[in-house]
Amino acid sequence: MLSFPPTLDRLIKLLGRLPGVGRKSATRIALRLIQSTEAECRELARTIVEAREKTGRCSICGGYTEDDPCPICADERRDASLVCVVERPSDVLALERTGRYGGRYHVLDGLLSPLDGIGPDELRIDSLVERAGEENLREVILALNPTAEGEATSLYLAKTLRPMGVRISRLASGLPVGGELDLADELTLGTALEERRDLSA
Amino acid sequence: MLSFPPTLDRLIKLLGRLPGVGRKSATRIALRLIQSTEAECRELARTIVEAREKTGRCSICGGYTEDDPCPICADERRDASLVCVVERPSDVLALERTGRYGGRYHVLDGLLSPLDGIGPDELRIDSLVERAGEENLREVILALNPTAEGEATSLYLAKTLRPMGVRISRLASGLPVGGELDLADELTLGTALEERRDLSA
Repeated sequence: MLSFPPTLDRLIKLLGRLPGVGRKSATRIALRLIQSTEAECRELARTIVEAREKTGRCSICGGYTEDDPCPICADERRDASLVCVVERPSDVLALERTGRYGGRYHVLDGLLSPLDGIGPDELRIDSLVERAGEENLREVILALNPTAEGEATSLYLAKTLRPMGVRISRLASGLPVGGELDLADELTLGTALEERRDLSA
Repeated sequence: MLSFPPTLDRLIKLLGRLPGVGRKSATRIALRLIQSTEAECRELARTIVEAREKTGRCSICGGYTEDDPCPICADERRDASLVCVVERPSDVLALERTGRYGGRYHVLDGLLSPLDGIGPDELRIDSLVERAGEENLREVILALNPTAEGEATSLYLAKTLRPMGVRISRLASGLPVGGELDLADELTLGTALEERRDLSA
């Protein structure tokens, strides 16, 4: 059975390994690429290699960065006594987009998941404990997913950090802002009810 | 507002220009790329550039190929008196996958669409007429999409080729094989009824 010419076919196969790219979208992308200019193809090719080469991890927070320490850890105007713990480097961006956080971050690189063999040693927990001691932290904000694994990891971190006398908090759970009450699932609505805010004061 | 490190950010922007890749999937793909090995990144980068360089068009049928003429036009075992007309090079593959066609192809590079300024001169129609004369064709099979533009283009081609004494046919319209009758839209079902096959003979 005939397929596309060999090099185009290899490109489709390689693109099909990328996350969320099936055979059909890989074909569509490959056909678009061979129809674009040579300069465009070379720019994409160069940027793939360069992005991998240049993007490293910050030795303090573990976030993606081209410089070490990263711009956030190096920023003197940010509150160094406040550390927000996240699962992945991309969570840092989500929090920065809110424009409502002025502290620093700590990337765990995952969540505890005993069934998958991910225990405390597989995560960046030791360095968090070190930071809590050395950086004289005022508060550690746990910003992990409100899932079973996120909750278990938060509980573990709270238990580990508590003896160090640092304040520990986690993100509020409740109704999504702008969402509709009758569309919320019962767990979210139940949590919103339990963790209701007092407006009487 | 903070974003990803500059090179990673540029990669996300470039990936986001590809068809069917939004900002979110571009980010996911870029993060996967910077986490893969240097060899994998270099292979993808090289293949993008190579696929564009090496993939050309067959001077006879217009299909994608690395050699000219393409493997199909060069294949002596294929029926040279039969030409199947398709809109795009990727349609050739769809027909080859059926394993039920042994003739050659002709890629139009589009469909007639007067509103978009696409007339007969914008398509590979002249070369099809030439082939019909020079290659002593027995039959031209029009395999264009069963849409308004596909039908209009088929009618135009039939009118143009008819004086040359070549047999002209088009693909059957009807129920998708394996589909369910009550899920077919009324146009498809109506066409299936009108073009019903006689089983009495």
